[in-house]
Amino acid sequence: MLGLMQDWQLLCHRIIDHAALNHAERPVISRSIEGPMHTTNYAEVRARALRVAQRLDRDGIKLGDRVATLAWNSWRHLEAWYGIMGIGAVYHTVNPRLFPDQIAWIVNHAEDRVMMLDTSFVPLAEKLADKLKPIERYVVLTDAAHMPATALKNAVPYEAWIAEVDGDFAWKSFDENTAAGMCYTSGTTGNPKGVVYSHRSNVLHTMLSLQPDAIGISSRDTIMPIVPMFHANSWGLAFSAPMAGAALVMPGAKLDGASVYELLNDYKVTCTGAVPTVWLLLLQQLEKTGDKLPYLKRVVIGGSACPRAMIKTFEENYGVQVFHAWGMTEMSPLGTVGSIKPQLAELKGDALLDVKQKQGYTPFGIEMKITDDNDSALPWDGKTFGRIKVRGFAVARAYYKADEPILDGEGFFDTGDVGTMDRYGYMQITDRSKDVIKSGGEWISSIDLENLAVGHPKVAEAAVIGVRHPKWDERPLLVIVLKKGESASKAEMLGYLDGKVAKWWIPDDVAFVDEIPHTATGKIQKTALRARFKNYVLPAAGE
Amino acid sequence: MLGLMQDWQLLCHRIIDHAALNHAERPVISRSIEGPMHTTNYAEVRARALRVAQRLDRDGIKLGDRVATLAWNSWRHLEAWYGIMGIGAVYHTVNPRLFPDQIAWIVNHAEDRVMMLDTSFVPLAEKLADKLKPIERYVVLTDAAHMPATALKNAVPYEAWIAEVDGDFAWKSFDENTAAGMCYTSGTTGNPKGVVYSHRSNVLHTMLSLQPDAIGISSRDTIMPIVPMFHANSWGLAFSAPMAGAALVMPGAKLDGASVYELLNDYKVTCTGAVPTVWLLLLQQLEKTGDKLPYLKRVVIGGSACPRAMIKTFEENYGVQVFHAWGMTEMSPLGTVGSIKPQLAELKGDALLDVKQKQGYTPFGIEMKITDDNDSALPWDGKTFGRIKVRGFAVARAYYKADEPILDGEGFFDTGDVGTMDRYGYMQITDRSKDVIKSGGEWISSIDLENLAVGHPKVAEAAVIGVRHPKWDERPLLVIVLKKGESASKAEMLGYLDGKVAKWWIPDDVAFVDEIPHTATGKIQKTALRARFKNYVLPAAGE
Repeated sequence: MLGLMQDWQLLCHRIIDHAALNHAERPVISRSIEGPMHTTNYAEVRARALRVAQRLDRDGIKLGDRVATLAWNSWRHLEAWYGIMGIGAVYHTVNPRLFPDQIAWIVNHAEDRVMMLDTSFVPLAEKLADKLKPIERYVVLTDAAHMPATALKNAVPYEAWIAEVDGDFAWKSFDENTAAGMCYTSGTTGNPKGVVYSHRSNVLHTMLSLQPDAIGISSRDTIMPIVPMFHANSWGLAFSAPMAGAALVMPGAKLDGASVYELLNDYKVTCTGAVPTVWLLLLQQLEKTGDKLPYLKRVVIGGSACPRAMIKTFEENYGVQVFHAWGMTEMSPLGTVGSIKPQLAELKGDALLDVKQKQGYTPFGIEMKITDDNDSALPWDGKTFGRIKVRGFAVARAYYKADEPILDGEGFFDTGDVGTMDRYGYMQITDRSKDVIKSGGEWISSIDLENLAVGHPKVAEAAVIGVRHPKWDERPLLVIVLKKGESASKAEMLGYLDGKVAKWWIPDDVAFVDEIPHTATGKIQKTALRARFKNYVLPAAGE
Repeated sequence: MLGLMQDWQLLCHRIIDHAALNHAERPVISRSIEGPMHTTNYAEVRARALRVAQRLDRDGIKLGDRVATLAWNSWRHLEAWYGIMGIGAVYHTVNPRLFPDQIAWIVNHAEDRVMMLDTSFVPLAEKLADKLKPIERYVVLTDAAHMPATALKNAVPYEAWIAEVDGDFAWKSFDENTAAGMCYTSGTTGNPKGVVYSHRSNVLHTMLSLQPDAIGISSRDTIMPIVPMFHANSWGLAFSAPMAGAALVMPGAKLDGASVYELLNDYKVTCTGAVPTVWLLLLQQLEKTGDKLPYLKRVVIGGSACPRAMIKTFEENYGVQVFHAWGMTEMSPLGTVGSIKPQLAELKGDALLDVKQKQGYTPFGIEMKITDDNDSALPWDGKTFGRIKVRGFAVARAYYKADEPILDGEGFFDTGDVGTMDRYGYMQITDRSKDVIKSGGEWISSIDLENLAVGHPKVAEAAVIGVRHPKWDERPLLVIVLKKGESASKAEMLGYLDGKVAKWWIPDDVAFVDEIPHTATGKIQKTALRARFKNYVLPAAGE
């Protein structure tokens, strides 16, 4: 027996329809790539998104065709996004921070037919143009006056391009499982992997994020997604703000402390999201100027673990609530958000910070478990750590054009992260599963050891990797870059860790190096480090 | 091209799974039918719901079978609800306030195989037992100690019944479009009509209601659904509280002012929902005792229009925010909620009350339009009123075992209500479409005229109905019951309306009567009134 309710499909353009009808005048304010501020609203964004849809349709872009965007967060990028989805085409938000060869690779892999890009990325596209074979047309997100001279194929300024149609157009009809967007993950090894969002998964993820204990945006909020649309859908904010009817502030390309502060203050932003690096720049700026954050109520911090001091500074010095969040491209991206459960509502000071430093718990729509290597569930005791696996309506089941199954027997996706769960359901990342050190069947967190080691006054940077061991399979090696002019013994380094971790976690050896290799985004490149120490022989004493 | 996201079905038992895992210890507190308070939590509710599922399964209840409940809000009713849904059976929450013949009719129409009922409804069931043909077993929601002696077929106390299984059971698997529940609407004419909710529509409706501008429940809330589960799913609160991880207070059968106040205060309820009658009793009680409402933050009021004075009293005397809401069984039931948009955030006093008196606006997932009789959309100007039509993922597309289409060409459901929409999207009910008076193609609101007429100091009750008119099709007749001992002329009554409404709205005549007929739920029975005045001849002066 089936229900007798309406078959109202979960389609992304219904979000902008809802905003345009119910929150028509709510502003969408952007810092343009050209510099000046620009203000529009949801009714206009929808009207112009319809022109984008109509214009793409006239160019022969069809259901399922991919359209790349190479752009910062702005109203034009937002219009393009909804316009692309509204005819059943697929937005492919390309991360301009990828290595140029990776950009070329993913554009070819996705077979993007059109690329919509900021003026500032025209030189990059020109450099790559020969390799971007499937692109039939470049639409530069600007007007004729600001259009750079370019030989890019069929290049046209966005404003002139959408002015060629009248906007008398209706969204296309299709099933909610139709692809809506693509985003590639940039692994440290191998080729990037394409995640393909559906209309259904995007709409459900947006509804998930509106839960009061997730991001919980209301119509009275003003949201600034600093996290770019090319970074896992700007954590969904470019969907959730219009669904809630919140005002939207799009920061464009300038993410330095002074620029971010200016927008937060001028437009009375109440809630924003970005990676810790952005907040570090902002907090340094505030310390310098003595400015406060009177309007800002909540910051969502994710992308990498938020330092304890940062949470403390935001909350105690600026009265801004910090929500630590965790997720990934494969999760649309929200996995956990660190709101405070009622059992913990009375906590203060360090005890509260202990909770806030965890990555949070899952809203409805995400199931999470931690398992050992044999896929056995581990206890939620706040200590045992295991592979973090997730299942849900906005979690990937496969990568684009890839056959390998990525789900376990119960349909869970292995996130590649390793962490603990406590009795309240709060998850805390302890490591990446490929970096964790497996010693005699037990796991040692490389990140925990690194965080401890950098606490030594002589240490500039530390990395811990597993090295083959005849008896224990792997044992930790501590790799250290000393501060300029310092010298230290191995015993001194290991002695510093003594008493701070379990005895069997103490590394078997220390290697002093001049430099630790990093990825393009500044993370320690463990693969390179492991290659370098592949044949390292640990001292016998470690056994 | 399809998305590559997981096929995570929207199933109602996933709500209680989520609550049991992430909010295991949050209390579910009930006033039992026997009297004493009872406390459990979400982990236990789920464990016992699994026993219900297992026990129903053992009784041969299968996918699609209907199970009736005749019960007040309690933990056992909640367990039964999730247990029934968890095997793909269909809960049918029977409204015990229906006329006994209607109850028999709907149980037969739904073909309920089992009935789960409170001890207090055993006499009612016994009286009807001969007519309740499809019922194979009665499960009385109590334990052996409180089990009344009864000859009801296969009657068994709930606690003994679920103790016969071990709870080692898994929810069944099925499609999200599977029927989850049924609720019959009790029209003033004709037989009740069955609305059939799906798992998908219930889950989506719950996510809709968690939007911060809808009901916006967080894990830190304590929710008391006074509105019964048999009244349109307790407005979704018995789903949304566990999805959010909020504590739940189930008030059982006692809904008088003192009992409601006791629960609000003893269990620090932060948010509750009920019809205006309940609030009238509570406010009278508070006035008598001088008690305050220190914990309560929000009340959701719906079911019928909330009087302005009630909103004012809650907000000004008790500091409780009122959210006026509107919906119906066919909408799962939420249609609009009256949260304040940012453009109106500065309003105070009467201007704010003007907005709060409206029924609110639609959250994402509901589309609304107002139309004339030709299905042409009418403007959102706050004055023009038309038929209110809705479309959405939790709106009915058909009634159970009924062939007549109930959607218009665009897939909208005609709610039978008539109202205005203002430029901000706030809807205000002006009438029921069958009661509105159609005079020369223009509409006159019977409710507006009634509300004005009862303002006359001599009037006890007033009703306005349309009466046939040779030129204008219909013209309004004002039917009046005077207060005891009063006398008045027709001219005096009509003169009182003069200047308060448009000239052409002034009724053509006044009929003084001793009594106005009412329905079982206290509403004016316009059908009876229209029948009585069917051949009424209006004076010629009205032309």
